[in-house]
Amino acid sequence: MTTSADAERLDEEDPLAHCRERFELPAGRIYLDGNSLGPLPRAVRKRLDQVVSVEWGQDLIASWNEHDWIDMPLRVGDRIGKLIGAAPGQVICADSISVNLFKVLAAALDVTRGRSKVLSIEGNFPTDLYMVEGFQHLVGAEQCRLETVPHHELIEAIDDNTAAVLVTDVDFRSGRRHDTAAIARAAHDRGAVLIRDLAHSAGAMPIELDAEECDFAVGCGYKFLNGGPGSPAFVYVAERHQHTRQPLAGWMGHARPFDFSPSYEPAPGIARFASGTPGILGMATLESALTAFDGVDLDDVRQKSLALADLFADCVAAAPELSAIELVTPTDPHCRGSQVSFSHPDGYAIVQAMIAEGVVGDFRSPDILRFGMTPLFTRYVEIVETAETMRRVVAGERHRDPEFQRRGRVT
Amino acid sequence: MTTSADAERLDEEDPLAHCRERFELPAGRIYLDGNSLGPLPRAVRKRLDQVVSVEWGQDLIASWNEHDWIDMPLRVGDRIGKLIGAAPGQVICADSISVNLFKVLAAALDVTRGRSKVLSIEGNFPTDLYMVEGFQHLVGAEQCRLETVPHHELIEAIDDNTAAVLVTDVDFRSGRRHDTAAIARAAHDRGAVLIRDLAHSAGAMPIELDAEECDFAVGCGYKFLNGGPGSPAFVYVAERHQHTRQPLAGWMGHARPFDFSPSYEPAPGIARFASGTPGILGMATLESALTAFDGVDLDDVRQKSLALADLFADCVAAAPELSAIELVTPTDPHCRGSQVSFSHPDGYAIVQAMIAEGVVGDFRSPDILRFGMTPLFTRYVEIVETAETMRRVVAGERHRDPEFQRRGRVT
Repeated sequence: MTTSADAERLDEEDPLAHCRERFELPAGRIYLDGNSLGPLPRAVRKRLDQVVSVEWGQDLIASWNEHDWIDMPLRVGDRIGKLIGAAPGQVICADSISVNLFKVLAAALDVTRGRSKVLSIEGNFPTDLYMVEGFQHLVGAEQCRLETVPHHELIEAIDDNTAAVLVTDVDFRSGRRHDTAAIARAAHDRGAVLIRDLAHSAGAMPIELDAEECDFAVGCGYKFLNGGPGSPAFVYVAERHQHTRQPLAGWMGHARPFDFSPSYEPAPGIARFASGTPGILGMATLESALTAFDGVDLDDVRQKSLALADLFADCVAAAPELSAIELVTPTDPHCRGSQVSFSHPDGYAIVQAMIAEGVVGDFRSPDILRFGMTPLFTRYVEIVETAETMRRVVAGERHRDPEFQRRGRVT
Repeated sequence: MTTSADAERLDEEDPLAHCRERFELPAGRIYLDGNSLGPLPRAVRKRLDQVVSVEWGQDLIASWNEHDWIDMPLRVGDRIGKLIGAAPGQVICADSISVNLFKVLAAALDVTRGRSKVLSIEGNFPTDLYMVEGFQHLVGAEQCRLETVPHHELIEAIDDNTAAVLVTDVDFRSGRRHDTAAIARAAHDRGAVLIRDLAHSAGAMPIELDAEECDFAVGCGYKFLNGGPGSPAFVYVAERHQHTRQPLAGWMGHARPFDFSPSYEPAPGIARFASGTPGILGMATLESALTAFDGVDLDDVRQKSLALADLFADCVAAAPELSAIELVTPTDPHCRGSQVSFSHPDGYAIVQAMIAEGVVGDFRSPDILRFGMTPLFTRYVEIVETAETMRRVVAGERHRDPEFQRRGRVT
C-alpha cells in the first residue's frame, strides 16, 4: 500500500518533476483531464501577446512574410513530427481531426484503388466513424464502405477488399491501446494501408510512425499536446503516399497559392494536405505550447504515466469501499494508453461529486469514469489524494446528492 | 479637386468617425488592406485574456459548459447573420471558407440531384474554383463538373443541367460586384441554386441573403469582420435546404455528440454543418471583434465606402503623373465592392514603394494595385494622403529601386 509519504518520495525522484512549472494550473484542484483538454502552458501567454499585439496589431498583413506565418503549418507540423516519430516533411498542422481524416480517407482509397472497405473497431471515437460514413454517403458504398469489428477480430477481418484499417491508438473510453505495429504489418500483408488516430497517444508516449511504416495519421493539438481548446489538428502522410491528391483542395495546398492560378496544382509533398487559410492565433498558441516538451524524453513520460496509473489502480483496489468501482483499462502495459478508466452505474454522479471536491476527471457514456495520466504536470501525491477523494465520495454517498445528477451539455 | 481641408471636413461630418477608436491601428501608417486582414479591434485583447487566463487556464474542461464554449459556433454564427441579412439559425461559424464550400457543394448537388454543372466566373477567387475541382476529382465529372464563363455571360450560361451557380459577391482583383439578386432569380428560374462567397462583402456593405432568397453562402472572419489572421469562417444554409446532409460529418454536427453514438445522426438545422471541435481561441477573438459593429448601420458603412473610393479615384485621376495608373474597379456604385483597384505593369513595385512610405495596400497578380476601403477606421484625409503618396512614388520613380522588386512568399 503506497502512502502519501511514499508518493512524496516518488515525486522527489521524478525526472519530469521540473516540467510542472511549465504550466499554469488551477489553484486547489487536481486536474486529471489533460487527456481531454491540456492545461495552459506558461509559454503561451507571452507568445499570444506577441502575435496579437505586434504581429497582428502592428505589422498586420506583412506578418505573413515578416513573421513567417505562411510557413507555420509546416513548421508546427515538423515540430509535432518529432514527438510522433515522423521525419521532417510528413506532418502538417491544419484544420480538425475530422476534416483531416476526410483528406486521408480519400488518399488511402486512392492508393488502394479498386478496394472499398474501411475497417475500424467498434467503439472507436465516433467522429472517426462518422467521417467514414459521411465519405461513404458522398461517394457511394461501391467506393467506400465502413465495417467495424470488435478490437480482437480486427486483424483477421482485413481482407483483399480492405483499402484501409482505421485505428485510434488508444480507445477513448477504456484506455485500451492497440498493437499498431502488428496491425500495420497485417494491413500491408494484405495490400491495405493503416490510418491511425493519435488523439490519445501523441504527446503521451513514444510513437514511431516511420519505423512502424504507418501510412497515414491524424491527431489533435488540444489533449496531451496542450495546445488549447479546439487547437488545430495535424495530419501525417508517409512520404511514399504524398503523390496522391486530397479533395479539400484549398488554395493553401496549391503549389503557388499567390499566383492565383485558375486551376489547382497540388503543392509538392505534405503541403498539399493544407486546405484553407490557417488559423494563426490557434496555431501559434500550439507552437508555443509544444515548448513544454523541450528536453523531455517520451520514454520518461511513458514510464511515469504507467507508474501513475498503477499507483491509482492499486489505491482504488486497496479501498474496500471502492470494490464496486471496476477497473476497465487493461493492466498489461503494452495494452494501455495514458488514462485509467473505471466503470460504475453511478459513474456520472461520482465524477461530478469528485469535481466538487476539487478532483477533475471526466465521464464517458454509458458508465465510464475516466482519469487522464499526464506526466508533465501530475504528481504522485495527487494520485493518492484522488483515490482518497473517490473513497470519501463513495463511502459518504456524496454522489447521491441530486446536484450531481444534473448533466451539462458537455459531459 | 478635393483638398486635405475638404477631407478634414468630411471626417468631421462622418457618422462613423467614432468607430476608429474601436481599433488599435499601427502608428504612422495608413492601412488600406483591411479587405485582406482587418486590424486588431480593441475589444479583442481583454476577451482573449479572459479566455486564456480564466476559461482555459482556470476553469479548463468545465468551460465547455460554464462559459458556453459549446454554443459558440451557433452564437457567433447568428451574430454574423445579423450583418448579412440572415434570420437566426441559418449561419454557423466553423472551419475555413474552403472547407465550408465543400460542405455546401455537396448540399447544393444534393438538393438539385440529377444535375452536375457548377457554374462560376472566370477569375473567381482560386480557392472557390479549386474546391469544386477537388470535389469533381473525388466524385467524378458525371456528378460534378466545373464550368467557368466571363462574368457578363454568367446568367445566360445557366442551363437545365446547372446544379449551382457559385459567385463571389465582389471580385478580389477588380473589385467588381456582381448582381447577386438577379443571379439568384435566374438560377432559380432554371432550377439551380446559388452559392455566394461573401469574403469581400460581409461587413463591408448591407447583404440580404434571406430577402434575395440566397441558397448557400460562405465567408471568412479575417477580412472586413476583423477577426484576426486565419479567423474561423462561416457558412449560411437557407432553412429550406437544411434537411440535406453534408459529407464532413464530424461529431460536432451530430444530434447528440456527447452520447458518443456509433452512427451518425445529423443535428437538426444549421448545426449539422459543423464538423470537428471548434477552435475556441480564434472564435472567441472573432466574437469580440464583431463588437466593432455594435450600433453601426451598414448603409452608413456602404455610403462611406463609396465616398472614400470616389475620393481616391478622383485624386488619382487628377494627378497628371498618375495617368498610366488605370482604374480597374467599375465606377457604377451598383457594380463595385469596397476596394479600389488599379492596374499598372509596375504594380508590384509601386505597392512596395508605397508601403515603404507608410501606406499599406496590396498587389494581386498579374498587375493589380489593390486598396481596401474600410469605413470603420479609414479617414478621408488618409485617402488624400494615399493618393499623394502614390503620386510622389511614381513621379519620383521610387518604385524603380531594386529593393521593391523582390517578392515575399506572400504578395
